[in-house]
Amino acid sequence: MIVMLKPNPERKQLDAFLSWLNERGMTVHVNQGEYHKIVGLIGDTSTLDIDMIRALDIVDDVVRLQEPYKNANRKFHPNDSVIDCGGVKVGGGNFQVIAGPCSVESEEQICLVAREVKKAGATMLRGGAFKPRTSPYSFQGLRDEGIRLLLEAKKETGLPIVTEIMDLSQLDLFDEVDVIQVGARNMQNFELLKALGHTNKPILLKRGLSSTLEELLMSAEYIMAGGNEQVILCERGIRTFETYTRNTLDISAIPSLKELSHLPIIIDPSHSTGKSKLVAPTAMAAVAAGADGLIIEVHNDPAHALCDGPQSLTPEAFAKLMVGINALRPFAYKREVTA
Amino acid sequence: MIVMLKPNPERKQLDAFLSWLNERGMTVHVNQGEYHKIVGLIGDTSTLDIDMIRALDIVDDVVRLQEPYKNANRKFHPNDSVIDCGGVKVGGGNFQVIAGPCSVESEEQICLVAREVKKAGATMLRGGAFKPRTSPYSFQGLRDEGIRLLLEAKKETGLPIVTEIMDLSQLDLFDEVDVIQVGARNMQNFELLKALGHTNKPILLKRGLSSTLEELLMSAEYIMAGGNEQVILCERGIRTFETYTRNTLDISAIPSLKELSHLPIIIDPSHSTGKSKLVAPTAMAAVAAGADGLIIEVHNDPAHALCDGPQSLTPEAFAKLMVGINALRPFAYKREVTA
Amino acid sequence: MIVMLKPNPERKQLDAFLSWLNERGMTVHVNQGEYHKIVGLIGDTSTLDIDMIRALDIVDDVVRLQEPYKNANRKFHPNDSVIDCGGVKVGGGNFQVIAGPCSVESEEQICLVAREVKKAGATMLRGGAFKPRTSPYSFQGLRDEGIRLLLEAKKETGLPIVTEIMDLSQLDLFDEVDVIQVGARNMQNFELLKALGHTNKPILLKRGLSSTLEELLMSAEYIMAGGNEQVILCERGIRTFETYTRNTLDISAIPSLKELSHLPIIIDPSHSTGKSKLVAPTAMAAVAAGADGLIIEVHNDPAHALCDGPQSLTPEAFAKLMVGINALRPFAYKREVTA
Amino acid sequence: MIVMLKPNPERKQLDAFLSWLNERGMTVHVNQGEYHKIVGLIGDTSTLDIDMIRALDIVDDVVRLQEPYKNANRKFHPNDSVIDCGGVKVGGGNFQVIAGPCSVESEEQICLVAREVKKAGATMLRGGAFKPRTSPYSFQGLRDEGIRLLLEAKKETGLPIVTEIMDLSQLDLFDEVDVIQVGARNMQNFELLKALGHTNKPILLKRGLSSTLEELLMSAEYIMAGGNEQVILCERGIRTFETYTRNTLDISAIPSLKELSHLPIIIDPSHSTGKSKLVAPTAMAAVAAGADGLIIEVHNDPAHALCDGPQSLTPEAFAKLMVGINALRPFAYKREVTA
Repeated sequence: MIVMLKPNPERKQLDAFLSWLNERGMTVHVNQGEYHKIVGLIGDTSTLDIDMIRALDIVDDVVRLQEPYKNANRKFHPNDSVIDCGGVKVGGGNFQVIAGPCSVESEEQICLVAREVKKAGATMLRGGAFKPRTSPYSFQGLRDEGIRLLLEAKKETGLPIVTEIMDLSQLDLFDEVDVIQVGARNMQNFELLKALGHTNKPILLKRGLSSTLEELLMSAEYIMAGGNEQVILCERGIRTFETYTRNTLDISAIPSLKELSHLPIIIDPSHSTGKSKLVAPTAMAAVAAGADGLIIEVHNDPAHALCDGPQSLTPEAFAKLMVGINALRPFAYKREVTA
Repeated sequence: MIVMLKPNPERKQLDAFLSWLNERGMTVHVNQGEYHKIVGLIGDTSTLDIDMIRALDIVDDVVRLQEPYKNANRKFHPNDSVIDCGGVKVGGGNFQVIAGPCSVESEEQICLVAREVKKAGATMLRGGAFKPRTSPYSFQGLRDEGIRLLLEAKKETGLPIVTEIMDLSQLDLFDEVDVIQVGARNMQNFELLKALGHTNKPILLKRGLSSTLEELLMSAEYIMAGGNEQVILCERGIRTFETYTRNTLDISAIPSLKELSHLPIIIDPSHSTGKSKLVAPTAMAAVAAGADGLIIEVHNDPAHALCDGPQSLTPEAFAKLMVGINALRPFAYKREVTA
Repeated sequence: MIVMLKPNPERKQLDAFLSWLNERGMTVHVNQGEYHKIVGLIGDTSTLDIDMIRALDIVDDVVRLQEPYKNANRKFHPNDSVIDCGGVKVGGGNFQVIAGPCSVESEEQICLVAREVKKAGATMLRGGAFKPRTSPYSFQGLRDEGIRLLLEAKKETGLPIVTEIMDLSQLDLFDEVDVIQVGARNMQNFELLKALGHTNKPILLKRGLSSTLEELLMSAEYIMAGGNEQVILCERGIRTFETYTRNTLDISAIPSLKELSHLPIIIDPSHSTGKSKLVAPTAMAAVAAGADGLIIEVHNDPAHALCDGPQSLTPEAFAKLMVGINALRPFAYKREVTA
Repeated sequence: MIVMLKPNPERKQLDAFLSWLNERGMTVHVNQGEYHKIVGLIGDTSTLDIDMIRALDIVDDVVRLQEPYKNANRKFHPNDSVIDCGGVKVGGGNFQVIAGPCSVESEEQICLVAREVKKAGATMLRGGAFKPRTSPYSFQGLRDEGIRLLLEAKKETGLPIVTEIMDLSQLDLFDEVDVIQVGARNMQNFELLKALGHTNKPILLKRGLSSTLEELLMSAEYIMAGGNEQVILCERGIRTFETYTRNTLDISAIPSLKELSHLPIIIDPSHSTGKSKLVAPTAMAAVAAGADGLIIEVHNDPAHALCDGPQSLTPEAFAKLMVGINALRPFAYKREVTA
C-alpha cells in the first residue's frame, strides 16, 4: 500500500500515523517525492481500513498494491478449489451444467423439466422459489412451497438442487437445499453474506449488475471469512449501455477470475442475454473460455409458459445445445500455470 | 402498453392472449403493421407482468407507455407529499437538513456532533449504527449500541434521528428511530422493502448505485404497496466512469423525480462526491435545483476522526455552508405546475 | 413507429402533423388511449427524423418499432455479406485472422512480424501508422512512413494490410492499403464516414467505447449510404466499471449483430482485454460464438518492445493460439436460419 | 509515478530500465515490498508514456501520482484563465450565457433568435451549421451557408458567435467565427485537436459522452500543447443508465475541474437533459455550483420548429430563466483558495 501525504504534513500527526501503522505490524518506508511525501507499507494490508486512512487530515491519496481479499485470493491458494454440491463436483476440471425453469410453478412442471434436463445431460436442477421482482405487482414465487416442490423433483431425479435465498430469515427453509444461490441484487447484502458464512452449504454467488470483479471477490471473502469456503462465483451479465441484450456477458471475467482466485466460476447465459436466441452462442463461448459450468433456464410446455422468461430454452433446444457443448469441451482453453 | 407480435402468429395462441388480456380488464386494439401485428392495450397496465407477456411465443416486443408505478406516481397524486419525521416536515415546500457523523462511535462523539449541527441549523441527526462495508475486515458499526447512543443524542438535543437498517431482522431495534434509512445497496432488497411497507415509520430510500429513477420509484412502490406511504427519496450519486469523484451526483434527478412523483427528494452531497471540498458547491446546486433537503456528513474532532469518511465536513465548514444555503434558498428554482 | 401525443392536442396542429406524415408516404392509424392519443405509422420510417418528431409541441414521446438502418439490416439482405480484402474473403463462412504489431516501428520490425504471423496462419497484416493517443506527449506513429513500411511487408509476404485512418485528409495515403480501419474514437466522426462511403475500399469499423450496437450499425449505414457496402464490423471492448480489464469484450455482440445485420463481425481480443494473458481465452470464446475473424496484436523481439502494448502476444504465443483456434473452429456455434 | 515490478525481475532488464529512466531525467528510488520491488519516480512524468512502461516484461503495474497534463493543470497555473471571445470575457469571475437555436435554418430565423436572446441578456450567439447526426438520413445542417447566416446575425446584433466544427478540412470556413466548438463525439479527434492548437481562436471543448475529466483535460492539453491556450471546457452530460434524461449532467464536474484546472467551465443544460422542462432547474444548479457560463438552446416560432430539439426553450422561457439566473448569481458558490 502506498500512502501519499499532503504537502508539509504536521510533524505530530505524521508521527502518530506512523506509529499507528507500526502497531498494526506494518513495515513503513517514507520517501520524499517532488510534491508529496510518499509512505510505502509492507505487511498484510488487507486488514487495514483503506477509507479510514484516506480520511486522515495528512493523507492525500492511497493506492493499494495488493488485493484486499485473502481467502479468495489465488496468491495464497494456488490450486483450484473443488466444491462438492450434493455429490456433484464443480471446479478443478469438473464441468457441470445446472438447468431448470425460471420459477417453480407446480410439482408436475418442475418434475417434468427435471427429467428433461437430466436426460439431456444436466447434472443439477435450478428453479426459483423466492423471486426478486422489480415490481411488487409481479409474481413473487411459490416461496416455501416452491422449495418443497424442488425437493420432490430431486427425490425423483437425484439431481442436486440450486435455489435462491432472498433474506437471511429464510435460511431455515434451505436445510435440504444443496446449493444456496445469492442473486445479483443481494451480492452486497452483507448481513446475508455473514449468515451464509456460518452455514456449511455451497454458495452460488452471482455478480452484481454493476459490480467489479474485486467487489465480487470481496463478497466471497465475507462468506469465507465466516468459515464457509464453498463459494462458486457466477457471472450473469453486467449493466452496460447496450439495450439489445438485457445485460452484457463479461466473458473475460472467466480467465480474469481464474487469475485472481481459486474459486470455480460458472456462467449464466440466460440472464446475461435475456434472449433465448443468444443463449447457445454465448454458452459455447463460455465453455471455450474455460468456465467451470453453466446455469441455464429451460422451460416446460411453452403453452403454459406464462411464467418463463424470454431467455428460456425449450427442452429440445437445451438438448441440442448440450450436444454442441460436449463436442466443444475437449478443445476449450485451459489455463496455463506459470511456475 | 403496445405489444408487437411476431409475424404470422398462430390464430389459437393470439385468441388465447387476447382473451387473457380481456379478463384482466384491458381494452385491446389490434393493428396490422408492415411487419408486425401491433396490439395496443388500454387500462391499468401497472398490474400486468411485462416480462410474462414478453415471454409469450407469439410476442416480439413490448413497450410500456405508462409508468409501472401507481402509488408513487404524480399523475394520480398531483400534490406534493409532506412526510412528518418525528415532528419535522419534509416536502411540499418544507426544506430540511439532516447532518451527523458517518458512524456513531461513542456517546460523547454523537452528542457533541448533534449539538454542533443543531447550532448550525440542522433539523435532524444522522449517524450510522449498522455500517455496510465492502470488506469484512472493516469496522462494521456499533450496531444496537449505536442506536442506543443516537437516542441519547436525540434526548439531549431534540433532533429526530435517521439511521440505516441493513436487514429486516433488525427491525425491532428501530422502534424509537424517527426515520429508517435504506442504503443504496439495499434499494432492491425486496424482502426488506416489503417489511418496511408494514411499518408506520418514514423511510429514507436511497437510490442504488446503478439504478434508474424508474427502478427507484418501483422500490418506493414496494413500500407503499404495503400501506406505508411515508417515503422520502434520496439521490446519493450513481456509478459512472468518472474516478475523480466517488460517484456522480445526478442533479437532474431532482426536477425529474418531481415530474414523475409526489414524494420528497433529498440529496446526499457527501457520498455522491466522496470529497469534502466538493460538498459545499454540490449542496448549493441541489438547493438551487429545488431539492427538499440535504443529508450531510459532519465529523467531530478531526484528531480522533479515524472513522469519518474523506467526505465529512468539520462543524465549522458545515456552519459556513448553512449560511450559504440559507442565503441561496429564496432564489432556488420552484417547479411550475401546469394546469 | 408509435407516436404518443400529449393530452388534448390542438386540432390544427394534429391535422398539420398527420398530413406531413402522409406526404412522407406513411400510413397512419390514430387510436385514443386512456391518457394519450396514439399514432401508429406504417411505412419506411428509417428516413423520418425521430428527434424532429419528438420536438413537436403536440408530441409526448416516440417509439421506433423498426431499426433505423436499412442497408446494414439483415431484414432486407437475408444472406451474409462476404467482403473481399485484397483477395482474402471475410464473412459468409470465411474466417480470417489479422495479426501484427501495435505500431509500425521500422522495416525490419514490420517485416519480421509479418513473416512470423504468416507462418503461424494469419491471413492479413495489421500495424498502426497513425496512432490515436490520449496524451499529446505519447508517440503518435510513423504516419505516412508507417504506411510505406506496411506496403514493404505486404510486398514481402503477400499479406493484405489493414491500418487505421485518423482523418479524412489522410485518405490519399491509403491508396494501396487493402482495408481501412476506423478506430473506436472515430466511430461517430461522420465527415470521415461519409468520405469513406465514396471510396471502394473495405472498411473495418470499430465499435465506439460506449456505443450501442444500433449506433455501430448507424455508422455502418453512413458508409453504405454513400455507396460503399464493404463494411466489416469489429467489436473491440466497451467501457464498463470493471478495471481489471482495460475494456469489456461484449461477446454477445457476435450473435446479436448476426441477427441484426448481414455484415461480417470480427473480434479484437487484444484491445478489449488489454492483458496478454487474457487474449487466448477470449479469442477462443469469440471463435466459439461464431465470429468471422480476429484481429490480434503480435509484437516482435520483446527486448525492443518499448512500443507494444501490454496486450501483445509474442510470435510463439500467437502460433500456439492459432493451433488452438484451428482445433476449435469445427465445433463453433453456427447461426441457425429460421425460414 | 510508482512502478511495481514483477517478482524476481531479471537483473539486466532492471538495469536497462533504470538507466532509461535516468536518461529521461527521473530520480529513481527502488524499494523491496513483500511481493514486488517498487520503483518510485520523481520528476516530470507527464512526458513518460505510461503504456510503454506498463508493457515492459519486468513491469507488473504502474500508478501515476501526478496528473498527466501540464498546460491545463492548476498546479502550474494557480490563477483562473480568462478567455476573450470576440470581446466577451469568460472565466475568472466573468459569467456569460451563450444562447441560440439547435440549427441555423434561415437568415430570418437566426436573426430573430439572436435579437430575442440578446434582449433577454445572452452575450453570445450559438447555432449549428455543421450538424453531427447519428443517422445519415437526418438533416445535416446548412454547412458553409449556415456560417454565413450566423455572421449576418452577428452583424445585426453584435453578439460573438459560437459554432461547431466537424472536421479539420472545414477550418478555413471558421475564419470569422469567434469561438470554435468541438462536439462531444470529436473530443478525442486528435488530428482536429492538433489543428486547433495552431489557430488563435478560443475553443469550446465539449466533454465526450463517456469521458472522464482527466480525458477531457488531456484533450485540452492537445490543443494547448500546440500553442493555443484559449480553451473553454464544457460539461454537456455523460452517458449513464438513466433513460428519463438523454444524458446525465455531471454537476460536480464544475468544482472538480476548478480544482484540477485553471480553464473556465461552462454548462450545457439543454443537451444534458434533453427535455425543455429540466433546463431551468439544472441551469440554476450550474450557476449555484460556480459555473463560468451556460450554453442554452433557444428556438424561434414553435410553429416552424420542426428542427429544434425537444430540449429547446422558447424565447419567453429563456427570458424568464435569465431573470432567475441573475437573481441567483450573487449567492452562488465561490471557490475558496487554499493558501
